[in-house]
Amino acid sequence: MSPFALALETLRKTSPLIHHITNTVTINDCANATLALGGSPVMAESPEESVEMVGFAGALVLNMGTLNPRSVESMIQAGLKAIELNKPVVFDPVGAGATQFRRDAAHRVVERVRPTIIKGNTAEIKFLAGEVSKQRGVDSLDNEAETAAVSLARKTGAVVAATGVVDVVTDGKIVCHITGGTPLLGRITGTGCMTASLVGCYASVTGNALAAAVLGILSMNLAGETAEKALLAGQGTGHFRVHLMDAISLLKPADLLWDERVKEASL
Amino acid sequence: MSPFALALETLRKTSPLIHHITNTVTINDCANATLALGGSPVMAESPEESVEMVGFAGALVLNMGTLNPRSVESMIQAGLKAIELNKPVVFDPVGAGATQFRRDAAHRVVERVRPTIIKGNTAEIKFLAGEVSKQRGVDSLDNEAETAAVSLARKTGAVVAATGVVDVVTDGKIVCHITGGTPLLGRITGTGCMTASLVGCYASVTGNALAAAVLGILSMNLAGETAEKALLAGQGTGHFRVHLMDAISLLKPADLLWDERVKEASL
Amino acid sequence: MSPFALALETLRKTSPLIHHITNTVTINDCANATLALGGSPVMAESPEESVEMVGFAGALVLNMGTLNPRSVESMIQAGLKAIELNKPVVFDPVGAGATQFRRDAAHRVVERVRPTIIKGNTAEIKFLAGEVSKQRGVDSLDNEAETAAVSLARKTGAVVAATGVVDVVTDGKIVCHITGGTPLLGRITGTGCMTASLVGCYASVTGNALAAAVLGILSMNLAGETAEKALLAGQGTGHFRVHLMDAISLLKPADLLWDERVKEASL
Repeated sequence: MSPFALALETLRKTSPLIHHITNTVTINDCANATLALGGSPVMAESPEESVEMVGFAGALVLNMGTLNPRSVESMIQAGLKAIELNKPVVFDPVGAGATQFRRDAAHRVVERVRPTIIKGNTAEIKFLAGEVSKQRGVDSLDNEAETAAVSLARKTGAVVAATGVVDVVTDGKIVCHITGGTPLLGRITGTGCMTASLVGCYASVTGNALAAAVLGILSMNLAGETAEKALLAGQGTGHFRVHLMDAISLLKPADLLWDERVKEASL
Repeated sequence: MSPFALALETLRKTSPLIHHITNTVTINDCANATLALGGSPVMAESPEESVEMVGFAGALVLNMGTLNPRSVESMIQAGLKAIELNKPVVFDPVGAGATQFRRDAAHRVVERVRPTIIKGNTAEIKFLAGEVSKQRGVDSLDNEAETAAVSLARKTGAVVAATGVVDVVTDGKIVCHITGGTPLLGRITGTGCMTASLVGCYASVTGNALAAAVLGILSMNLAGETAEKALLAGQGTGHFRVHLMDAISLLKPADLLWDERVKEASL
Repeated sequence: MSPFALALETLRKTSPLIHHITNTVTINDCANATLALGGSPVMAESPEESVEMVGFAGALVLNMGTLNPRSVESMIQAGLKAIELNKPVVFDPVGAGATQFRRDAAHRVVERVRPTIIKGNTAEIKFLAGEVSKQRGVDSLDNEAETAAVSLARKTGAVVAATGVVDVVTDGKIVCHITGGTPLLGRITGTGCMTASLVGCYASVTGNALAAAVLGILSMNLAGETAEKALLAGQGTGHFRVHLMDAISLLKPADLLWDERVKEASL
């Protein structure tokens, strides 16, 4: 069995607690996606308990979709505790560049917590890497995503994942490109957040952060493709969302076709 | 192409940001309904960023389903900014008359923000119009809804929509009655909130607030009917909710049959 | 008609308001489950209005899935008001033993409010009963659940429900064992929370707290079984969740087979 298939099998056998401090829009989706893949979700955002909860967790997922001063403080304190306890921290800097409050929060989490994995879309990763977005063709955007991801990885020591038409994952030394998925994943809310949850699940059972990030994204891409194929005539985004959760819950270790879908290169 | 069909086509092409300050019960439904119709949802409730986020938005939706002092303040500040920037504000005064806190909040939002569109059920609109509810037959209730909606529209300058068996939309000079829909829309949570999101979507692409309110309600009615027809034997409210989102996402510009469903009259 | 069938029929006819102070993860599921069974959900967490809202409610459901100091205070004040007004209070001590904050909150709610019904899983009920968990075989766990539930019921005067492979409900004098359900109920989030909502629905229409707790659990077990049977090949947890809501909404009074599923014994 490949180490990637083993990761999913271990996850399903051990069902580790995946602690989330996340947004109110997709919190239910993240809990169900975690359960569907095999983890055990817990969402304890309050600063009064978020640090203590880290002690029971296999991984910590920080998502800044909906932010307030209390949740930012909670993310930082829980994140610091997780790093201290050598538990992986996945950070999803949702909408990082949009407002001053969000820019400050994203920078504070990255600088103070030093997350194990940062997963965002291309715009978010470029913002964190300190680069000004230059909208050109899709190819150049992909190159820009890779440049930004590598730069952010080298600056912070994190594994960085920039999702897009082709997803990029890098630790600053190796870069992986992941293909697949479907544009339908952008037609419902929560698929990015759920991907961070899946990455957290894998990170809790493997010491390899790069592999965890790739596996989380690969799993979402595969589930998206399965869900799209399952759509019947007359079914739209409502059913796509249901089929997607079905597909995550039915994903088999042998489905994780790293060799077919992931191209690795040294930098 | 009718201006109504054009509104949906423009929405799908331009995918404007629809900013929500809304409740925690149906926030996910509102995000998915906005995406399904063609908009791009953002939910940034914190007063620390809600005003700045208005700058990027095509419309602002304020929904007081779950309230707290921070969110009320955020609604007022973001609402004032939107009006200043000439962006449409849709206000959904959920449960407006129920508690003192809710009564005060609803009045403050209406008086300070002066929303572009106020959409509520008959009881909520009657409360805001300052009328005491007198429960009689269904017909008289519809008349009461119209009286209250016209009175509120004239008092505030807003387009007012009162949903019910027959939906009423008025700017104080013209009144539209919209038929259709299904009682099943009342068997799941969030259909009223999602309607406000749809109204916000249309308002972001048309300068005509009356048309936007009618189109949002008409779209929900049509989607509800499609979802009801799609129900198979043995399917209940779980599947109705899925079919409803399907139907919103598959709504076509040509489906917006204004002439068949909407009766307009001058007052 | 049995008194149990009558409870569901009365619920559907009168549609009482079921007030929730609950968590942000499953709040939408709880609202939809309440509607599906026949109640009318309201979720007004803010201390500014939660007490006043109790006046309109048929029952109050307190769920500590996501906690903060404001919501704990709100639970206590609303709970005290409900007891004062002789309205049933259902308390779901989610994750009661996990953190100091949660332990304190659970004890405060139980001691100050004296809920009518406490419904938790075995670990939560054992924590509240003050017993140290001793993990042994499944049978002994069931015995432990009963011992803890009876002890907690006698200590607090509440009807106590401990869910597990076999569910236990007791008022300290009579104990009921409920069979059925499916392990799939543990594969999606919110089924425990929704069970508390169903218990709240039944409690609002019957003066018998023991019967209400049994009926809520029995309804979830039956709906889980129906949903499992409805799963087609290729459907996973996404569809199970949809089928489950279908089944709650289609539950018929005659389905509540107390004699077949519930074994009663005096202590």
